[in-house]
Formats: sequence, C-alpha cells, structure tokens
Amino acid sequence: MTQTTTLDAQRATVARYLDAVASKSAAEIAALYAPEGTLEDPVGSEPVRGRAAITEFYAPLEQASRATELLSVRATEGGAAFSFRVTTTVGGATYEVEPIDVMTFEPGPDGDLLITSMRAFWAPEDMKEIA
Amino acid sequence: MTQTTTLDAQRATVARYLDAVASKSAAEIAALYAPEGTLEDPVGSEPVRGRAAITEFYAPLEQASRATELLSVRATEGGAAFSFRVTTTVGGATYEVEPIDVMTFEPGPDGDLLITSMRAFWAPEDMKEIA
Repeated sequence: MTQTTTLDAQRATVARYLDAVASKSAAEIAALYAPEGTLEDPVGSEPVRGRAAITEFYAPLEQASRATELLSVRATEGGAAFSFRVTTTVGGATYEVEPIDVMTFEPGPDGDLLITSMRAFWAPEDMKEIA
Repeated sequence: MTQTTTLDAQRATVARYLDAVASKSAAEIAALYAPEGTLEDPVGSEPVRGRAAITEFYAPLEQASRATELLSVRATEGGAAFSFRVTTTVGGATYEVEPIDVMTFEPGPDGDLLITSMRAFWAPEDMKEIA
C-alpha cells in the first residue's frame, strides 16, 4: 500500500465508524474494531477492551435516535484524529457534543482497516442540551 | 485542583502554545514543554525529546511570518486535543495547514502546566499553498 492509500483507508474507516454510530447496532459498531481493540471514552477513563465489552459500551446508543457529522479528519502514518458532531435524542431531550477522537488501525481479513484503539477527547461540560 | 480547573489550565496552555508558535522564538516555544517533553510531528515520525532538540525543531519557524488560530479544543482528565490553523509565509509563498494536535501535561514549577508530549496529526497533502 502506498502512504496515500493508507491515509485514504483510514479516512474511509472513520467514515464507516461515524455512519455506524449514527445508524447501526452496538455489535455492528464493535465489529469495526479489531478483536482485541480498545476504547477510552473519555480519555482518562478506564479503557474498554475487546468486542464484547465494546458492544456493551455502545449498547445504550440503540435506545437513542442519533446523527453524526464529520467536521475534520487528519490521517497520518501513525493513525488518524478527527473532530465530529454527535446528536442523540433520548426521552424527548436532544444532546449535542463535538468530541475529537484519535484512532489507530490494522488491516482486517477483508482488506478493510480495523480500529485497534479509539480515544475520545471530550468532557461532560462540552455536552449541550439543544432541544 | 478541581477537574474544571485542570481542564481550564490545559486550555490555557494550548492558547499559550498557539500564541508562542505565532510570535515567539523557538526557545520560548520549547520552554512551554517539560524539560524531557516529547514532540511527534507528524504522528508516525521519530519523536523529538528534550528542550534542546525541541528548540531545534521549531527553529525554522523563526524565518517565517506566522499566524495561528484555534479552531476547536477538547480537554479531558487525560490530556487535550485541538484543531487549529497555522499560516506561514516564507520567501513570498504562504502555506496553510489545519492539524489536530494531542497534548499531555504536568504541573510546572510556577503553577502553569508544561507540555509533556505533543503529537501532531496532519499529512503533507493537508498543506495548501494559499498565496
């Protein structure tokens, strides 16, 4: 793979991830991770490891109406960072937060990249109730 | 320190860093780092360690006319991530790039936070010649 292909593949994985967070099941989101992938959300909290635990982490999303929007992505040889907006509606209240996530990747069996780690930079004070 | 104070101190250090990158000497930028701080710019390249090496890294900036603008910052207990625009003019050409940087910090002797690590996510293809 040339470097540009790798960077494009990273950006494509970020796009698949945001699409999954907006519209897929927790298990489908977790399937984008490597089997022993890790998730630290927010950064500073105890990391979650492996697809089963990652599925549990995303499970509450299934109760929410969700939307995501990529604001900016920067891919490098060592991983990618991206800023995005996530809007969730639960029980009539709508919340919006714009985290900055950092991901590392490894090639998966079908040629797509799998997420080996995700670290989400945001704090509770960054979340706004918008409706 | 309460968590909010820590997050505010991180944001203040990010602001001081961007101000220094825009208008200070390489040694003054390096002084914002911890003595054994590290810098990986871009992510995937060999890290630079310690203030002397960090000063050398920023030295070429002194030949350029520079401006920086913070676009977004997210501080957490484990560090901060921020998106920013840096514009540099050298030899009549002006370049613009919008990296996403990740920093960790430790308290410095005067109460300000020092940067213990900086990792810059951007690729050459993200740099644009704008004038």
